[in-house]
Amino acid sequence: MTQTAINMGDKLAAFNDLWSPKIIAGFNGHDVMVVKVKGEFNWHSHPDTDDLFFVLAGRLTIQMRDGDVVLGPGEMYVVPKGVEHCPRADEETHLIIIEPAGTPNTGDPETAVTKTKI
Amino acid sequence: MTQTAINMGDKLAAFNDLWSPKIIAGFNGHDVMVVKVKGEFNWHSHPDTDDLFFVLAGRLTIQMRDGDVVLGPGEMYVVPKGVEHCPRADEETHLIIIEPAGTPNTGDPETAVTKTKI
Repeated sequence: MTQTAINMGDKLAAFNDLWSPKIIAGFNGHDVMVVKVKGEFNWHSHPDTDDLFFVLAGRLTIQMRDGDVVLGPGEMYVVPKGVEHCPRADEETHLIIIEPAGTPNTGDPETAVTKTKI
Repeated sequence: MTQTAINMGDKLAAFNDLWSPKIIAGFNGHDVMVVKVKGEFNWHSHPDTDDLFFVLAGRLTIQMRDGDVVLGPGEMYVVPKGVEHCPRADEETHLIIIEPAGTPNTGDPETAVTKTKI
């Protein structure tokens, strides 16, 4: 047990790679992660889990088949499990995301990145 | 499915009562909530769940039996399940907290407040 506050600014200062989530805490079998994104990801869905996005800085468009949601700082959206989505950020954007530990970020273990702890 | 960003500022503007979590989203069987706190809560623990705190504004001291953690804006802490804690805020403090749906905020259904959706 680490009795230290987890500071988002410190964590974000520790890396610069894009679309590569970093684990900052564990919570009930989930990974709490920060990630920097810019550009467009791919269309995917997670059959077994909702996908929580919280914007710390920048602007994130979560494209979905029946409409987009645009998030600025201090805004959150939960993509329900099974719903196809494609995140896009026209500027560099910093997010908190929460997914069950081991969830492939692309929805497919073949193409997923490894999530590292920082 | 609501295709609308969940804005923390808007949600926090919608209520003023203290220590009364408001549900703003669902995520994998959990309630994502905002809450305003000031003063000291009570010592309690949750035997079956971790307790995630994220500070939006103000300053939260999470007192634990083997030491305190102090959180400012943009800082997070996860109290592991079973660990006794007593949150305290010397000024009004605004938080995001995440707990499984139905978790009593005091650790005891007898004394817990009802969490309402906003």
